[in-house]
Amino acid sequence: MDRVGGRPRDPGNDVAILDAALDLLIEDGFGGASIEAIAKRAGVAKMTVYRRWKSKEDLFLAALEHARPPDGANAESIGELVVTVARLLSQNRFRMLMARVVGASVDHPNLVGAYVERYLRPRLSGLAELARDAVEKGEFPEGTDPAVIEDVFAGAIGFVLLRGEVAEAEIDGRLRGMLRHLGRREDLHLG
Amino acid sequence: MDRVGGRPRDPGNDVAILDAALDLLIEDGFGGASIEAIAKRAGVAKMTVYRRWKSKEDLFLAALEHARPPDGANAESIGELVVTVARLLSQNRFRMLMARVVGASVDHPNLVGAYVERYLRPRLSGLAELARDAVEKGEFPEGTDPAVIEDVFAGAIGFVLLRGEVAEAEIDGRLRGMLRHLGRREDLHLG
Repeated sequence: MDRVGGRPRDPGNDVAILDAALDLLIEDGFGGASIEAIAKRAGVAKMTVYRRWKSKEDLFLAALEHARPPDGANAESIGELVVTVARLLSQNRFRMLMARVVGASVDHPNLVGAYVERYLRPRLSGLAELARDAVEKGEFPEGTDPAVIEDVFAGAIGFVLLRGEVAEAEIDGRLRGMLRHLGRREDLHLG
Repeated sequence: MDRVGGRPRDPGNDVAILDAALDLLIEDGFGGASIEAIAKRAGVAKMTVYRRWKSKEDLFLAALEHARPPDGANAESIGELVVTVARLLSQNRFRMLMARVVGASVDHPNLVGAYVERYLRPRLSGLAELARDAVEKGEFPEGTDPAVIEDVFAGAIGFVLLRGEVAEAEIDGRLRGMLRHLGRREDLHLG
């Protein structure tokens, strides 16, 4: 347990600060979200935030780490992953955070790497393994490179970032269309 | 010709202002780039900018329109387009502008649409037609949806935005790998 100044931290404060930081990153962007506004939203003194995180970047990195998806929400097949990804990418909050992080990446390259590792990857958990399994069990033609299947999912992100709001059904349809063109047999995905 | 206050515009000023606006959008982002800094970089009075564009958004829209690629730089096959796109996406300036526009899209949704139409599409000129032609001449298997080929190129954008700097050869390899998995016959792309 880290303490500063001898006073124990209140874990409830940390949660409130991290939630407020993520909300304000989404609403106002990296440059627009101030420590002052975050402290106010969290109902704590500014010094409480400064004592715990030494910069805005550190605070946002912690907020991304904190916003983990609930356990047990993992896709167990490529078909389930299509549903998960289409739902995620159609959510305004998800898309806004992604756009804010991409925008901040020019000045804060660490942030986008941390976003991918701490926020995005846990939401696409098992993608690499699911892709490999799907090829092995014949859901895709022999010789299919699992990395290409991964790229299909990563690719949907670019589509959404440049289009803005996109309906879940459209993303779902595009993902399935692309996978079908890679030779995916949809009837096998439950096997 | 639009004039304000009876004085004719100096087209040289316009070019200098639009170039400065694009540079500062890339360097400082939408929020960070001020009209004052743009005027200073262009070597004109602030009022010269305000007389001509009524908001920062209008100025940036004009700057995106102004930054058209040179005529005659068009790809004439899917193979040439792979080369063009890999080169573009590996350029820092291109990637930074795209990240800035995506970041600003939360507060300025018009900007990302204008970026796609005025800046990106002219640089991928003929993509839809090239995709259709490639299917027709048998470069891709019968029944291939040309929209899927277009999505492969759009998809590379998401990959680059989330990865930061990516080497031209890596983007080239990923695009070719994806197209090969769609059944592309590379030997036909010069036919």
